[in-house]
Amino acid sequence: MLLKSLGMKGPVWGRTMEPAVFTSLVRLDPQAKGTLVGQLYRNLSTAVREGHLPAGTRLPSTRAAAAHWGVARNTVIAAYELLASEGVISLRQGAAAEVVPLPRPRESKAEPLPALSQRGQSLSRDPRIETGRTGLMSPGEPDPALFPADDWALCLRRATRLRQSDSEGYENYHGLPALRRALADQITRHRGCSCDADQILVTPGTQASLTLLAQVLADPGETALIEDPGYGGARLAFASAGLKLAPLPVDSDGADSTLVAPDLAPRLIYVTPSTQYPTGVRMTLLRRMALLDMAARHGAWVLEDDYDSEFVWQGREIAAVAALPRAERVIYLGSAAKTLLPSLRIGWIVAPVSLVAPLRAAQRTFGMAANVHAQAALADFIDTGRYRAHLHRISKTYAARRDVLFQTLGAWHGDRLRLSNPHGGLQMVAELAPSAVECRLRDLIRHEGFAVAGLSDYRLTPGNPGLVMGFAQTTPRHARRFAKALAAALRAES
Amino acid sequence: MLLKSLGMKGPVWGRTMEPAVFTSLVRLDPQAKGTLVGQLYRNLSTAVREGHLPAGTRLPSTRAAAAHWGVARNTVIAAYELLASEGVISLRQGAAAEVVPLPRPRESKAEPLPALSQRGQSLSRDPRIETGRTGLMSPGEPDPALFPADDWALCLRRATRLRQSDSEGYENYHGLPALRRALADQITRHRGCSCDADQILVTPGTQASLTLLAQVLADPGETALIEDPGYGGARLAFASAGLKLAPLPVDSDGADSTLVAPDLAPRLIYVTPSTQYPTGVRMTLLRRMALLDMAARHGAWVLEDDYDSEFVWQGREIAAVAALPRAERVIYLGSAAKTLLPSLRIGWIVAPVSLVAPLRAAQRTFGMAANVHAQAALADFIDTGRYRAHLHRISKTYAARRDVLFQTLGAWHGDRLRLSNPHGGLQMVAELAPSAVECRLRDLIRHEGFAVAGLSDYRLTPGNPGLVMGFAQTTPRHARRFAKALAAALRAES
Repeated sequence: MLLKSLGMKGPVWGRTMEPAVFTSLVRLDPQAKGTLVGQLYRNLSTAVREGHLPAGTRLPSTRAAAAHWGVARNTVIAAYELLASEGVISLRQGAAAEVVPLPRPRESKAEPLPALSQRGQSLSRDPRIETGRTGLMSPGEPDPALFPADDWALCLRRATRLRQSDSEGYENYHGLPALRRALADQITRHRGCSCDADQILVTPGTQASLTLLAQVLADPGETALIEDPGYGGARLAFASAGLKLAPLPVDSDGADSTLVAPDLAPRLIYVTPSTQYPTGVRMTLLRRMALLDMAARHGAWVLEDDYDSEFVWQGREIAAVAALPRAERVIYLGSAAKTLLPSLRIGWIVAPVSLVAPLRAAQRTFGMAANVHAQAALADFIDTGRYRAHLHRISKTYAARRDVLFQTLGAWHGDRLRLSNPHGGLQMVAELAPSAVECRLRDLIRHEGFAVAGLSDYRLTPGNPGLVMGFAQTTPRHARRFAKALAAALRAES
Repeated sequence: MLLKSLGMKGPVWGRTMEPAVFTSLVRLDPQAKGTLVGQLYRNLSTAVREGHLPAGTRLPSTRAAAAHWGVARNTVIAAYELLASEGVISLRQGAAAEVVPLPRPRESKAEPLPALSQRGQSLSRDPRIETGRTGLMSPGEPDPALFPADDWALCLRRATRLRQSDSEGYENYHGLPALRRALADQITRHRGCSCDADQILVTPGTQASLTLLAQVLADPGETALIEDPGYGGARLAFASAGLKLAPLPVDSDGADSTLVAPDLAPRLIYVTPSTQYPTGVRMTLLRRMALLDMAARHGAWVLEDDYDSEFVWQGREIAAVAALPRAERVIYLGSAAKTLLPSLRIGWIVAPVSLVAPLRAAQRTFGMAANVHAQAALADFIDTGRYRAHLHRISKTYAARRDVLFQTLGAWHGDRLRLSNPHGGLQMVAELAPSAVECRLRDLIRHEGFAVAGLSDYRLTPGNPGLVMGFAQTTPRHARRFAKALAAALRAES
């Protein structure tokens, strides 16, 4: 698509195989019994049947192939013609011989493939199945159309043409120094959490950060506390590291650690204090203090996912939990996924000094590094002030979209839904009547083209039914269409 | 550095904290005992002492801070002056108040931090310690100066300004469709291994690919066979997945699976058949067949790391093992690290159809995705023929550098070293006399600025001593300097 729109030549779909590669796949043994033509014919048809020469492959010319095999050209011509007469390849005057489509088994039935490992089977659960699909009103997604592509292209081009001499090879696997400096400055200034560039690890995003931290900080069988309802990606990262999951209840003051049984000793506590995911509530200072107390009592690490903290709709920006006194055991996580684009694949960890070396080593072992040019572009973007200006701009847009959805739903459904206007973030929750069948309602609405999630998609334990709606891409028209679809679904469901 | 050379404003080193963040860090309680000035003074000095306001932080103006706290400006002035009189902050006419450097403990001594998990401790071994350091003559590294930065910048800019509408968010986590198509074409054509775009997963590099495959395909306690000597990164990825490692002996015909004890039942077999790492030998067809036999017998997966297959110095390009008949259980791995730049962080897996869904799910759980713009640029680079042209160009350069090192070392040390001229790849091995103390020799040479590795750095079991030298950046001057340094080291060591 990219190429077409540029008017360039697309990939060649009929693939001519290199003669050297071709003759290494279809070998000739001069000592073997029978004629060379017969041998060549048999080996070629086997190669086609077994899929090594797929449909559409253009065979090398008889001249080139003969030279590579070291046989007479007539031998190759005879073999090609035999195959053509059986319909295995097509021969046309002036064109390359081409393999004809043939029904073939993709994988040999005779020898079954090894089974997946047990770990592989449990890893095969797709996170998206739990947290909703991609699309309109999908929670957790920014609007890619707001990505400042021209500005970014400029920074990227500059970053690429200048050599990043300290970070082109395998050095600074944990992040480009210029970006780590820019982030340290940013986080100190805007999140109140004072840190050095050396405490920062740049990763390919928060999901990689969570996997890394779970593997380094906890052993299989240990417990991770996660917000309930909470982020499905964290749940999967911890489960894939062999951890047991325990719920940390959430109400309108955020996660409440005082409700956790005192004999439950977590090793990790995952929280989203700035903007609880998906409810959008902010954790109060009292709850933050209690959280740090609990962590100290159990010798647990707190993973503070500061996602969406850039988007505050109510009250003032407040500092991160990692900025509080006694926050030594808090590990701070951020990302450019919501503020710029998920597919940039840039996230960061701010770790206590003592964890930096082990995390860097593990990051290298897992191969979790981010693209150097994107990192340099982000550093440039931050340092030149473009990043804050961009945040300012998109925050206004997102706030307007939140208002539109909130007001439209209020006007249509004020009596049937309990809508929570989020403190921040790009999604909002509508609680349903306790009798509503959430999954049915959700599926009815998805059927209308809205990728909303059910609140229970985020829960570890049962709770009131609800819908979670992303509003990052919601125009007034979408909001009205959605309100209508919801009305129809509520009618159908009741 | 990037910014300076562009003549732009660098990051602001004295950080002015946002008033809202500042007042959320240093809180005032109107109900508390004592004066507001006293409270403010105490809370501010605590914040500085505990590092929440690091040295160099610029405090908000007294006016802004007073407004945010809702107190009289004189209260703030008095507190600032108290702190200034104690040397905690500096006050200068017309400038922002600034926190003065103060010795402070980085981490509280009172509450020790939680220990690393056992898994974390074993993950803390840095791969670089085993496989040599970054720098001149470091094995496994390409020459970043050969990266076609201008061309790449062009492709990247084009890729960024065009919206990648199907891959901007969380869709196509397993790779941009255009890149997967270009790679499938490339691999079919040049590696003889016929595959569809749907069988390809794009990852942030081979290290991530290996971690992903080890976690999905094998359970803890199962055995991975790896070439001996072999790639340290694979060793670490498998060990970090809890696998037991067993050696697969290597000689001048490549890895020899017939030497593995018949009762050893591996789950994974890791090989580098095109260019064995680090010896540079190519696996013969007989050995390839035996390898597939062994895999079928044990129900094992073969991981074929096709790194450096683009650089062939002797003989012709031959097809990958994955292209052979009965290669259903072969998983093919490639990367742009050596042909373009390691820090692009782009690698790929070609998996049998039945493994695609589980691998995609696990890739998402682990967060191992590659940057979308780099992927689009690579697709463009391949589709427009730039990639093959670039490979052709750099292969010539690398071949010349290999010759220079081989001839220089031959002239200087022909009698004392057994030099192997590699079939392909960017490193060569010099075997030392059996009596040589390899690590001492290696360290003596490293001391002279050459990041060579010892052959035993790559071994699972003891073997002859040797040196492994990368030649990707070796000019004639480097080669002579290195030959001299080696001579001195050999003298000192004997």
